[in-house]
Amino acid sequence: MTALDTTALAPDLHVLADRLRAELGEDAVVSDPAPQYAGDRAVSAEPGTPYLLALPRDVEGVQAVLRLSHDTGTPVVPRGSGSGLSGGAAPTLGAIVLGLERLTRIREIDPVDEVAVVEAGVITADLSRALAPRGFFYAPDPASAHLSSIGGNIATNAGGLHCAKYGVTRESVLGLEVVLADGTLLRTGHRSVKGVTGLDLSQLLIGSEGTLAVVVAATVRIRPLPVARRSVLARFPTIAQATVGVNAISLSPVRPAASELLDARSLEDIEENTGERVAEGDSAVLLVELDGYGIGEQTRDLTTALVASGARVTVLEDEAEAEHWWELRRSGRGSGVGQFRLGEDVAVPKSRLGSVFAALERIGAEHGVRTSAVAHAGDGNLHPSFSLPRPDDDPAEAATGPRAPIPPVIHEAADALVREALAAGGTISGEHGIGTAKRGWLDLELSPASRDLQRRLKDAFDPQHLLNPGKAL
Amino acid sequence: MTALDTTALAPDLHVLADRLRAELGEDAVVSDPAPQYAGDRAVSAEPGTPYLLALPRDVEGVQAVLRLSHDTGTPVVPRGSGSGLSGGAAPTLGAIVLGLERLTRIREIDPVDEVAVVEAGVITADLSRALAPRGFFYAPDPASAHLSSIGGNIATNAGGLHCAKYGVTRESVLGLEVVLADGTLLRTGHRSVKGVTGLDLSQLLIGSEGTLAVVVAATVRIRPLPVARRSVLARFPTIAQATVGVNAISLSPVRPAASELLDARSLEDIEENTGERVAEGDSAVLLVELDGYGIGEQTRDLTTALVASGARVTVLEDEAEAEHWWELRRSGRGSGVGQFRLGEDVAVPKSRLGSVFAALERIGAEHGVRTSAVAHAGDGNLHPSFSLPRPDDDPAEAATGPRAPIPPVIHEAADALVREALAAGGTISGEHGIGTAKRGWLDLELSPASRDLQRRLKDAFDPQHLLNPGKAL
Repeated sequence: MTALDTTALAPDLHVLADRLRAELGEDAVVSDPAPQYAGDRAVSAEPGTPYLLALPRDVEGVQAVLRLSHDTGTPVVPRGSGSGLSGGAAPTLGAIVLGLERLTRIREIDPVDEVAVVEAGVITADLSRALAPRGFFYAPDPASAHLSSIGGNIATNAGGLHCAKYGVTRESVLGLEVVLADGTLLRTGHRSVKGVTGLDLSQLLIGSEGTLAVVVAATVRIRPLPVARRSVLARFPTIAQATVGVNAISLSPVRPAASELLDARSLEDIEENTGERVAEGDSAVLLVELDGYGIGEQTRDLTTALVASGARVTVLEDEAEAEHWWELRRSGRGSGVGQFRLGEDVAVPKSRLGSVFAALERIGAEHGVRTSAVAHAGDGNLHPSFSLPRPDDDPAEAATGPRAPIPPVIHEAADALVREALAAGGTISGEHGIGTAKRGWLDLELSPASRDLQRRLKDAFDPQHLLNPGKAL
Repeated sequence: MTALDTTALAPDLHVLADRLRAELGEDAVVSDPAPQYAGDRAVSAEPGTPYLLALPRDVEGVQAVLRLSHDTGTPVVPRGSGSGLSGGAAPTLGAIVLGLERLTRIREIDPVDEVAVVEAGVITADLSRALAPRGFFYAPDPASAHLSSIGGNIATNAGGLHCAKYGVTRESVLGLEVVLADGTLLRTGHRSVKGVTGLDLSQLLIGSEGTLAVVVAATVRIRPLPVARRSVLARFPTIAQATVGVNAISLSPVRPAASELLDARSLEDIEENTGERVAEGDSAVLLVELDGYGIGEQTRDLTTALVASGARVTVLEDEAEAEHWWELRRSGRGSGVGQFRLGEDVAVPKSRLGSVFAALERIGAEHGVRTSAVAHAGDGNLHPSFSLPRPDDDPAEAATGPRAPIPPVIHEAADALVREALAAGGTISGEHGIGTAKRGWLDLELSPASRDLQRRLKDAFDPQHLLNPGKAL
């Protein structure tokens, strides 16, 4: 975790705490929150930053918190499960951290309408688990699906591995239940795929990182489980050639459910973490999942495209072997133990994947920083990592996320890569959100006209600027 | 066409016309526009309503129009190709109708990035035609695709036949180029499936019916042409049973590309229009298109679901026969000749299709009005029609869209059906937009909190309220 800089002014939160306890009950208000509430998986508030934790049990409780915020001018930091990677849920000075973790009801599953109605605190993977016996699944699956909440996914418009085929979170949300800055409950959207009445407030709220309103529930689209799945492994002598393979898939008729690209140093990380030999002399691996009807024909067309691009292709017929490879992929970002490490989240047009991987290598060499990257190749989303060995290492401390400042050269290397991605027509964040961690780059991507408009939209929702101040915008 | 009520006040548009001519050139400004510019396919301005038509040749021309509007306080009505069905492009008093029909450049087609960059005036079907030789297509296909423009489709978030599988227009738009009310050019979005930097202005602008900004170009997602297609015809003894069949598809693993439901009177209309016998003693027909890999397995699973629901199923192996059925479907709304006729566009949760079809029948009987409906069944979107024979009919006049007022009982029947759809958890417009035609129902669907918020968003984009005043919101 990197540290969020806040000055150490301590407003008196006791009066607020008492008023909240009167509304929400004793156990729903915490004056001395556990350390995990001080940040997310990337950014922490400075130790000692005073804030209050509210954990309402229902929607009315959330409304009470926002009414109090509105009446007293107290900032509110909405928080899902704290699995974010950009600091979106890190407390700000004197704020009420509004945790949605108790709103965990799956209110409804309706396979005929192909929707589920879920509360914000439902853990994403739990929804798919509840749907599986009915033959359905919820498509958005960020790598953190077993930790992250639906509400948090909506706040960040979370992506994941299956977006090129099934879309990001946005494409699976039909309607929202949100609490506005003044405590009003607002329902948006509908229960059908179509519906064009008025401005699409749902779509504006998705990805707004808690700066416009607080998501308390959602009507989401569910899909039938695919009739078949198959994983295919393609090994390439170079990462450049692997990106040619990715582009060859675009030109073929087959659209994988997931296609994950690992560079040489990600493969090294996997070997180090697991003790397994996976690289086998190659420098890049593309791990592809196909699903749906005609899995044999799909496999044939995919293999044709990959072999033409110079890949050695292995169809993972054995399900356990396939699952093992997906497990290995998940460990591809390394443990971070013994290292200073910073991860980024750019996305670029797919035709530019090759040049951005090349730039990453060059930037690593120029800055004397170790780089590695895994990519959700099907949607051009790269997660480059920048690291240096940490001297006087304490592995226990490192594993739980130390606050030791990352050496500037790592930030410089990351900055150079982000600028490369922008120059390639890409974006500074494919799926993690801006939070506090990426605000420094915001002006490089958004024009003055865009920023001005976004500020006016923020004013329309939250004239007092109390919702997640200092984040995202 | 129904008539848009405007009072016949005539502001002096000559000065404006001269200023516009100086900026855009002589031929880009029309003081006496042809009749088709007086409305869309549903709503016309009162004859004699004064307005000016500007047909800029490029984006700079659009900016010039909006700068002039901004400086002089002149309303602007953006217009795609005029194929709308809700009056969104009907001129308002003293406005500049800003036609985008000359912005017809397909700037770029990039199969590797899976995007095309197109100007607003490109006719939707022309884009797919340009993509086909590369093996790609543009998924959104409103029934008007051969008439409607991409810009108009974006303004209304147009739907069509293939939305349940491929999404509505919204799901195919990655970025926009829009001109703001003061003439500023704004680029939104990105060129990859992922991208979460800032509020998603593209998504807010899509479906805003020209009330927030004027779309001049878009980066859209393109998809590989399916490797196979197959059409399946299912005949049911009753419409109720057909909706059971639609719901059985939801519970099966197969997801059709299109599934169009025709009720008994739509089948009658087809028989009358074409002279063909199509009903064959049945009262409802579901016409399904499957596409993609494993077309045989898909056909098997679909047939299983439909037969279990009591259908007589015919797989249309012959492509010409299949194409003929889709042609028949397109004529399912009847010609309108010799009738007073009003079409609606509700969408409901799919489980409620049966009850809404039943309500339509009941409402027709109660009001003494002939009703019929076709439905994009896969996404719960119904197009009910309400009609009465027109006495002293003039077929030529009727065919070109008469302004004769529709008898109140037709409006009453439509109103009753729209309220049924809302009571079923549906929406007053699945895909046509609100325009002027559906504004009367807006308050039934949107809460005061929602309307208030939408007004504030409108203010943020267009503080002078000059963009398409009196429409949509």
